[in-house]
Amino acid sequence: MDNKKTNNKRSENTKCETDSLCWGRNPVLSLLEDTPERCSKVSMAKNIQPHIKAKVTELCRAAGIIFTFVDTAALDRMAFGENHQGIIASVTPVEMLNEEDFISALPQQPQPCMILLCDHIQDPHNLGAVIRSAEASGASGVMIPKRGSCMPTGTVIKTSAGAALRLPIVKTGNISQTIRSLQKAGFWVIGLAMDGRETLFKEDLPPRSIIVVGAEGEGLGTASAKACDDIRYIPMKGTTGSLNASVAAAIAMFEWSRSQEKH
Amino acid sequence: MDNKKTNNKRSENTKCETDSLCWGRNPVLSLLEDTPERCSKVSMAKNIQPHIKAKVTELCRAAGIIFTFVDTAALDRMAFGENHQGIIASVTPVEMLNEEDFISALPQQPQPCMILLCDHIQDPHNLGAVIRSAEASGASGVMIPKRGSCMPTGTVIKTSAGAALRLPIVKTGNISQTIRSLQKAGFWVIGLAMDGRETLFKEDLPPRSIIVVGAEGEGLGTASAKACDDIRYIPMKGTTGSLNASVAAAIAMFEWSRSQEKH
Repeated sequence: MDNKKTNNKRSENTKCETDSLCWGRNPVLSLLEDTPERCSKVSMAKNIQPHIKAKVTELCRAAGIIFTFVDTAALDRMAFGENHQGIIASVTPVEMLNEEDFISALPQQPQPCMILLCDHIQDPHNLGAVIRSAEASGASGVMIPKRGSCMPTGTVIKTSAGAALRLPIVKTGNISQTIRSLQKAGFWVIGLAMDGRETLFKEDLPPRSIIVVGAEGEGLGTASAKACDDIRYIPMKGTTGSLNASVAAAIAMFEWSRSQEKH
Repeated sequence: MDNKKTNNKRSENTKCETDSLCWGRNPVLSLLEDTPERCSKVSMAKNIQPHIKAKVTELCRAAGIIFTFVDTAALDRMAFGENHQGIIASVTPVEMLNEEDFISALPQQPQPCMILLCDHIQDPHNLGAVIRSAEASGASGVMIPKRGSCMPTGTVIKTSAGAALRLPIVKTGNISQTIRSLQKAGFWVIGLAMDGRETLFKEDLPPRSIIVVGAEGEGLGTASAKACDDIRYIPMKGTTGSLNASVAAAIAMFEWSRSQEKH
């Protein structure tokens, strides 16, 4: 993105304290039109002009970006008094890779390779924790659908202990199509779900594995689950016990790591 | 603890929003003298009487409890205007078990049984996450040294998704002595540390296992590491990668779960 459009000053009042901000009508509209996947949130003044409001909300809806309306004073504090023209966007500092470029650059068959595919994780702390564990387990990258998911914001980078700046983070479109592309590249695609056919530990995970984790609460989407080669569950004890999504992802990724260690 | 001494009103201004509070000179002194393991924090007015200050700080230091000095107005807000007499303590709602009682009630040899021993975890979110994963992996309990550790406060209960109220939480004294008692009860004690002799995945974990996890950053204490039967490390990729303490604990506990599934 053009540096002139972005300002790296920190916000004092947003939740994502380490996000970069971009303000002003034209800079934010350019961001939303050209690189919507780098925008995690838009804050508008309650009294913003109706034609700007209509245009911005349309672009946000199309790209699945959260938008809110706040008092002008709140925007003033966020922008440290700069001329924000009633609109501020949060911009992720992570450069997301293109799916085709990423897949074509992966180690070819039969070399071992594991990738995590996030089926719409919503919480930045979970996404950060997942990326941190992905790096430590030896994943080649983390793939994130560009619509309806948490994007790698400053909070994600912080929670990932910096791993989000080192590990390839890949934006994907339709998740079923992504799974098919990965299958063509010689990967076995394993979805994690409570109603899986076998436990995760039933047999070793193959050298070329994709691990698909679902959103918090909702789990794997129906289309994603259908596209997977295999659905596995993590065996749990107790009647009420459950696992955090990022812990479940870490257990599956290290199960791949353990499986490879034996070969 | 005597109900008259504790008040369940919530604090608006403390970090641990769901902790119960106990206020007033005598109630807090009784709490610190009788059941210090149920007190997670003490807040005192900056102008509290010197003899109370001396007594409270002495008791807090002896029990390893955090104490702070704040403005009277902050205490007023915490206590919703009740007569706090310049002192408020945070009280954990979890009933912690006695070590001897807990060990004697465990399944006898050779029945399988796994317990997590926390070597001074400091962060309530980490402790909560650890307890949640412990329950899901089938641990029989989580043991916490009563001095110098995070106690099962309201934040811990919340982060554990309620598991801290269901799984036995056990207070221990000297961690090396605890390890020896567990060894006598037929357990194999495995410490997790980066400088371990073998990887966690080298061979299956025994049916009767204790997993010892160290504090965030510092890792296992020297005395704890020495008392363990075995030190294992989780193999990590990348030069800068690391794992969150609660994720490392979850991977080890589910490795025990996986090892048992094969038998």
